Formats: sequence, C-alpha cells, structure tokens
Amino acid sequence: MENEYVKEITSKSEDFSQWYIDVILKAELADYSPVRGCMVIRPYGYEIWENIQHLLDKRFKETGHKNAYFPIFIPEALLKKEAEHVEGFAPEVAWVTHGGHEELAERIAVRPTSETIICSMYSKWIKSWRDLPVLINQWCNVVRWEKSTKPFLRTAEFLWQEGHTAHRTAEDAEAETLRMLEVYREFVETELALPVVKGIKSENEKFAGAARTYTIEALMSDGKALQAGTSHNLGQHFSKVFDIKFLDQDGQLKYVWTTSWGVSTRLIGAIIMAHGDDRGLRLPPRIAPIQVVIVPILGKKDQVVLNCARELFGQLKQDFRVELDDRNEYTPGWKFNEWEMRGVPVRLEIGPKDIEKEQVVLVRRDTGEKIFTPRNELHQRLKALLEDIQTNMYRQAKQFMDSNTREVDNFEDFKKIIEEKKGFIKSHWCGNESCEQYIKEQTGATLRCLPLDQKFEEGKCLICGKQTDKVAIFAKSY
Amino acid sequence: MENEYVKEITSKSEDFSQWYIDVILKAELADYSPVRGCMVIRPYGYEIWENIQHLLDKRFKETGHKNAYFPIFIPEALLKKEAEHVEGFAPEVAWVTHGGHEELAERIAVRPTSETIICSMYSKWIKSWRDLPVLINQWCNVVRWEKSTKPFLRTAEFLWQEGHTAHRTAEDAEAETLRMLEVYREFVETELALPVVKGIKSENEKFAGAARTYTIEALMSDGKALQAGTSHNLGQHFSKVFDIKFLDQDGQLKYVWTTSWGVSTRLIGAIIMAHGDDRGLRLPPRIAPIQVVIVPILGKKDQVVLNCARELFGQLKQDFRVELDDRNEYTPGWKFNEWEMRGVPVRLEIGPKDIEKEQVVLVRRDTGEKIFTPRNELHQRLKALLEDIQTNMYRQAKQFMDSNTREVDNFEDFKKIIEEKKGFIKSHWCGNESCEQYIKEQTGATLRCLPLDQKFEEGKCLICGKQTDKVAIFAKSY
Repeated sequence: MENEYVKEITSKSEDFSQWYIDVILKAELADYSPVRGCMVIRPYGYEIWENIQHLLDKRFKETGHKNAYFPIFIPEALLKKEAEHVEGFAPEVAWVTHGGHEELAERIAVRPTSETIICSMYSKWIKSWRDLPVLINQWCNVVRWEKSTKPFLRTAEFLWQEGHTAHRTAEDAEAETLRMLEVYREFVETELALPVVKGIKSENEKFAGAARTYTIEALMSDGKALQAGTSHNLGQHFSKVFDIKFLDQDGQLKYVWTTSWGVSTRLIGAIIMAHGDDRGLRLPPRIAPIQVVIVPILGKKDQVVLNCARELFGQLKQDFRVELDDRNEYTPGWKFNEWEMRGVPVRLEIGPKDIEKEQVVLVRRDTGEKIFTPRNELHQRLKALLEDIQTNMYRQAKQFMDSNTREVDNFEDFKKIIEEKKGFIKSHWCGNESCEQYIKEQTGATLRCLPLDQKFEEGKCLICGKQTDKVAIFAKSY
Repeated sequence: MENEYVKEITSKSEDFSQWYIDVILKAELADYSPVRGCMVIRPYGYEIWENIQHLLDKRFKETGHKNAYFPIFIPEALLKKEAEHVEGFAPEVAWVTHGGHEELAERIAVRPTSETIICSMYSKWIKSWRDLPVLINQWCNVVRWEKSTKPFLRTAEFLWQEGHTAHRTAEDAEAETLRMLEVYREFVETELALPVVKGIKSENEKFAGAARTYTIEALMSDGKALQAGTSHNLGQHFSKVFDIKFLDQDGQLKYVWTTSWGVSTRLIGAIIMAHGDDRGLRLPPRIAPIQVVIVPILGKKDQVVLNCARELFGQLKQDFRVELDDRNEYTPGWKFNEWEMRGVPVRLEIGPKDIEKEQVVLVRRDTGEKIFTPRNELHQRLKALLEDIQTNMYRQAKQFMDSNTREVDNFEDFKKIIEEKKGFIKSHWCGNESCEQYIKEQTGATLRCLPLDQKFEEGKCLICGKQTDKVAIFAKSY
C-alpha cells in the first residue's frame, strides 16, 4: 500500500524517458491532446508556469522592459525577408491558407518566433535617437511543426516569452544581450535551483539570423544537456532588411541594433529532469504550486485532529502556498506517496500525539528527514526550512553538474565518456565547423557553448590537433 | 501650442468613430499591423490589459478556479461535433492546412473558442462525482476571421480568458453561470467604472451551442451598446457529444453539466468609448498604467525644481503608478495636453512657487479641477483623490446610462429614438423571434438582453401587440 503510487512510476535509472512521461502524467502536470504534437498544460503544471512568469516578469520590469502583444500571424513575404531566418524556420512553420470559407491570397505563418513582425512595427515607431532604446517583451504561444515531440521539451505549440529590443549602438545591443543572459542565469539558479553554464554558441548552433547567440546550459540528471534560455545579438541583420532607421544626435540616419531573448515552458521539463527522483517530482519551494501539504493522521479523536489541521491551514495560508488533504477516502500512507510524487517540498503531519505534545511533524521532500517542530515555532521554522530546501536542491544539482563536467583532450576518452557517463565534456576546439561536425557525427554530442567568464590555457583541438585557446563544452542534449 | 495634440484628435461629437481610432493611435494603445484584421497592442494598451488580468484573475482564484492551457489548434472533426457550435463558428475559422513543407491529412482550426478541445479532455479526466466540479480558466489568444475589424472591438485575433467548468447537476451549472456573471458585473463596475445591465440573451442572440447565455451590457458614450462579457450555461449539449460521464454517488453513470464564460481585450475598447472625451482618453485610476504624472514647471531655478520632482517621484512610486516627465524638449503646456490625451487620472505640477509654499498642484483629469495640496498631506490626499475620481467616473457613466435608458411601448417612438438619440430602449416583447427580427430589420437595433433581477408589469409586445410580462432591452450595438 505504501508503495502503490511509486510502483506506477517507471524507475528513473531503468528508463529515464519513460520515468519522465510517467511523472508528468501522474503528477498531472500535462496531458496529451487530440492535436498532433500539442500538449495540455494542466493546472498543477500551469501554476509552475505562472510562478515562473511572475518571477521573471518582475525582473524584466526592473530592467526597464515593458510587455506588449504582436499578432500570432506573419504574412509569408514578411517571414521571408531575412534569408537565414526563413531558412532556419521554414521547415517547421504551420501555414494558414483559409479564412472562413475563402482561400487567402497570401498564406500566413503561425509565428515560430516574432522577429519579423516586431521589426516591421519598429521600423514604423522608431524615428529618432530619443526613441531608443526600445525595450519590449511579449508572453505568448508559438508554433513549430516538429517531427518528434515530448511534453514540455519539444511540442508543436509552446508558451514562452520573447524580448525584442532596439538600440542606438552595437555596444548597447551587446550590453543588453549579456544583461538578459545574466537575468536568465540568476533567475534559473535562484528560483529553479538549477545551476547553469553561461556561454556563447558556435556559428553552427546560433539562432537563424543572429550575429551571436548566448545560452545558459543546464545538465539533466541523466547526463544530457538542456538549453535553458538564449539571448541573441542580432546586429543589424534585421534592422537592415526591415529598414529600421533613426536620426542620431549627430544628424546622421543610422540603422538600429537589435536583440532578442527567450525562455519557454521547456524550463518545466528542466525542473522535472534535474530534480526528480524515483519517487517522482521534487519541486524547488520558490516555484512549487504547493509548498506545504498538511496531512492529518486520524486516530480515535478524528474531529480534534481535523479541527487542528484546519486551524493550521488557516494560519499558514497567509504566508505559504499550502494545501490541506483532508480527504477521508485515502489513508495517510497513500497521501504521503501521492504528495511526494507530486514534489511538494514539505509535508506537515499532525496526529493525536502531536496535539498532546503541541508539535507537528515536518518531512522534507529533498532528504526525507523528519523534523519534530513545536507549534509555537512553526511559522519561522517552516520559512527557514523552505529556504534551506531551496539551497540544498541547488547544491545537490551543482554538485551533480560539477562532478559530471570532465576535461578531456583525447577523442578516445571523449567517446567513451559520452557513451558511458555522458555529462558535460570540456575540450579544446579549434573553432572549425568541420571538427564540430565530426564530433557530432561520431558521438551524437553537440557543441553546447564556449563558456564565458573563464580563461583557458592553450591546448590542442580534440579533432585536428591545431593549437588553440578556445575551449568548448560538448554534450548529448535535449 | 497648448492645443497642439488636441487638434490632432478628431472631435468626439463630430465623428465618434474617427475619434476612437485617433485616440487609440495617438495614445499608443495599439497600432495596425501588416496582418489583415490584426492589431498590435502597444505597451501602454497592454498595461491596461495586465491590470485587467491581475484584478480578474484574483477574483477567479478566490472563487476556486485554476488556470490551465489547452492547444490553440482544434482538429476539424472535433470542432464539428456539436452541430450548432460549428454552424456558429465555421464562417470565421482560420484553417491550418500545411505543417512545414507537408500538407496535413486533416486540416486544423485555429481556436475561435475552446469548448470542443477542452471537453475532449474533460471526457478523459472526469470519472467520478469526486472529480466534480472542474473549475478551469485559460488566458489566451483566439482567432475569428471577421470581415470588418476595428481595434479592440473586433479583430481577427484577440486576447481573452475563457472559463470552462463541469458540474454534477443542472443546478450547480446554473449557479456557476450566474456566479461568474456577477463576478464580471462587480469587476467591470468596480475596476473599470463601467455600469452594466445584467441580463439573459434571446434564443437568437445566444452563444452557438449554449442552453442559455447571460450577458453584461454596457452603454458607450455615443449611445451604442457593447456586450462586455458573457456567461453560458451549456447544459448537457457538449457533455453528450463529447461523452463526459461520471459515476455519481448513487451508482448511476451521468452526463456532466458544463458552463463557459469570457471577457476579452474588447473591454479596453469599452473603457475608451465609455469614458473618453474631446481631449482624449480618461482612464479609471484602478486600471490606469500611470495614475499620476509629475510635470515639473521649470523657471529660473531649474535644478531645484527638478530635484524636488525627482524626490516626489521616489516617494510616490512606492504606492502609486507614477511617471516623471522630465523631458526638456517639450513645454509644460505640451505635456499637459499629452498626458490628458493619454488619460492619466491625476497630473501633479510642481514649480518654484509651489516649492516656496511647500505645496504641489494636483489636476484631476475627470473634472479639470486644480487642487493646491500641502506637501506633507500629499500621500493621503492623493490616495483619496484617486478613489474619488474612480467613483466619480462611475457616477458619470451611470448617470449617462440611466438618462439614456428609455421605456418605449410604441414602435414609432422606438424608431425615432433609435434614429435620433440611440441608447437603451426597454420595451415589452412577446418572446417571438419574428418580432425581434422585425425590429432589427427596421431599425438596426438588436435585442441586447432581458434584464435579470427586475420585475415588470404586463404590457403589449412592441410589434405584435401580444400581452406579455417579458421586457427586453434593445439598442444599436458594437
């Protein structure tokens, strides 16, 4: 009975991929829909997204950005304006060809990303240096008609935010690109307890139409990398084709410099895969829809315990996201498993003996530790406990990432590690696309990024042996 | 110079429709896009929507609803399941026929509304009476391929929320339908300062697929009605075609009863049209993106005034949505017009004399009144002033609605009023669709609703003369 739910979830070590799907469906984060490649985000999953939105949006506004909304539709001619961009996205665009009973004169794309439609507006709005910078973000859905899909990680439709900014100088655009990358890093590490590596993408892996793409890369607990957010310096690629010019203070007409940056519901996939265990989800307290679940342990004095549980619920709900599980059709043991599977950071048990002793039992989801806590200290102890769980989850994930980041300058070792242990591999790389491509073909590992803010000694390229001071991180990835 | 901006806006009494467009474009609420019938919601307009979302979402959660997200795409077969529903929506559906380079086997609709996709999920999730009620809401975009469009009022794509609930009994569903109608009424009247009439739609005007449609109807300042929100009791129409059954406590397998309800970015159109005047927008303080704008009046002691304005800004921004307009390329007079046009409820002027007198000047957007306010009382005075403006704007709109609601039981008078004065007309109506249709054909006025919570004496139907106790409100409408 105790293991009822746990049995229903595939063991993580046995079949990570099936475990991932099991957790999503059983915890009711999401469900498959009747539409090919599209998922339904259920309330428990959507609440995580709402928490992410709230915490990120605050950071965007603090850095001077405002939200707006641009059409979901992009005329084909507009999408085709930037050559690299359309080449990158055309294979996965969903096309609307009919409105009502009529065929459209020009087919329109359902946005895969909004650079083109937004730049077409910026060319109308931006006239003078006084109009700059333009700092706009949009929360919306986008569609990419992917061949193979997986809930949260890769779906035909997903939710995201996309920032689009325009600047007076190349330096301003680069500063914005790096500022937002840092906002992402700080957000993901602080709120999602996910350590990441900040880096720059290779030419081959950069965004279609970007001058430079920066990324934060996280390591999932199966040793595969996940791109958790990207920030693109678009140079003048888009401003030139969309004719976004401004009159500068010196009286010259100049093209603006643009950036774009985004994170998506994919982050929920990252949370599941980085923190989950054989018992199910483990949610970081700061984004958990339920931070504390109260489970009354009913004995002979049912009503007394229930009343006490309800009183606790009333007190705690002012400062915590708390749920009272007073269902009488399930045993406490069943409930323990259920809420562990759903990743609730703290379980609060209260039974007749606890009432006698004026205490409650707090059980940590991250360590399983039981903590007997005096009633009169509950509030501050709980607050500290949630912070400690958040910190501990970050520490665990960081430790995992560090111990699974290996420096290798020998391709035989590289292949062996990718095969057996996975994780991040740091290697010297000459910067040549052919060496990058060779690694991908031979091992399936891709170049995740060239880490920022790190100095490396010279060494030999893993493939061609050329002397270089470039070091890249390679990994199998989602 | 003083009138520079005002001149650029068409006079409201001269050409209401042009005034509406002018205000939207000049105040930068929205802009036309390169996509047919789609608008861009600019940051100033989107912030109104964010405030609406925040205030409504709070109410949804307080009444036990949770948010989720369902796919934007609906397979054609699914959309066609409920006969009345598809008949109502088919003429305005945008169809996706290609994904990437491939033609789809079955074309898919871009959601015009989500009853069908959501009900297909509910049939999977709902098994037992313990699963009921299901109370879910979704914030999203929807697409209706309308022939003629107008920003905020009718666009090919718009943003909205749609609640979708499932219940055990007919009574529960009806109670939910009316509960959410009341949430809308209270929200619109309290936060948007818009008085409305609550009522039920005629058979002819109800939602495609509903058993009953309830509505809140507002009166715009040109005398035309605007449907501000609807709440539908869907009976078992959808549960039967989507096979949403549950095992009741009595051991019987039964169909659930469903509801749906929604409001959209159309509410922003209502705010503009109900409250605006010849000088531009007037925004109710509770949803205004900027509640107070500080305009320093620069004299000889520029720096002292600027410092003081900045100090005030720093103090006020903790409790109010406040903007400091310290641009030096514009005169104070120009700024006054600009911020009046943009509808900011309170202007705070501070000049050298005010500093001497330790006062500021507050100017109300709703009445134009100037209020000299001691610095040390500013905070509480401003708070009270914003509340007073909110109340006054509601009172003005209510007075307008009341004095433009006329009881008429003579078709000649009816025609004359619709022609000359517009507004709401209350008339006896037999309940027959042919009489309703006749009125529409002869006058262009539609049956807005049969008011709830009001008792009427018997009278004769406006058209056929049949004795009836039914009274309906008719109006020209958006």
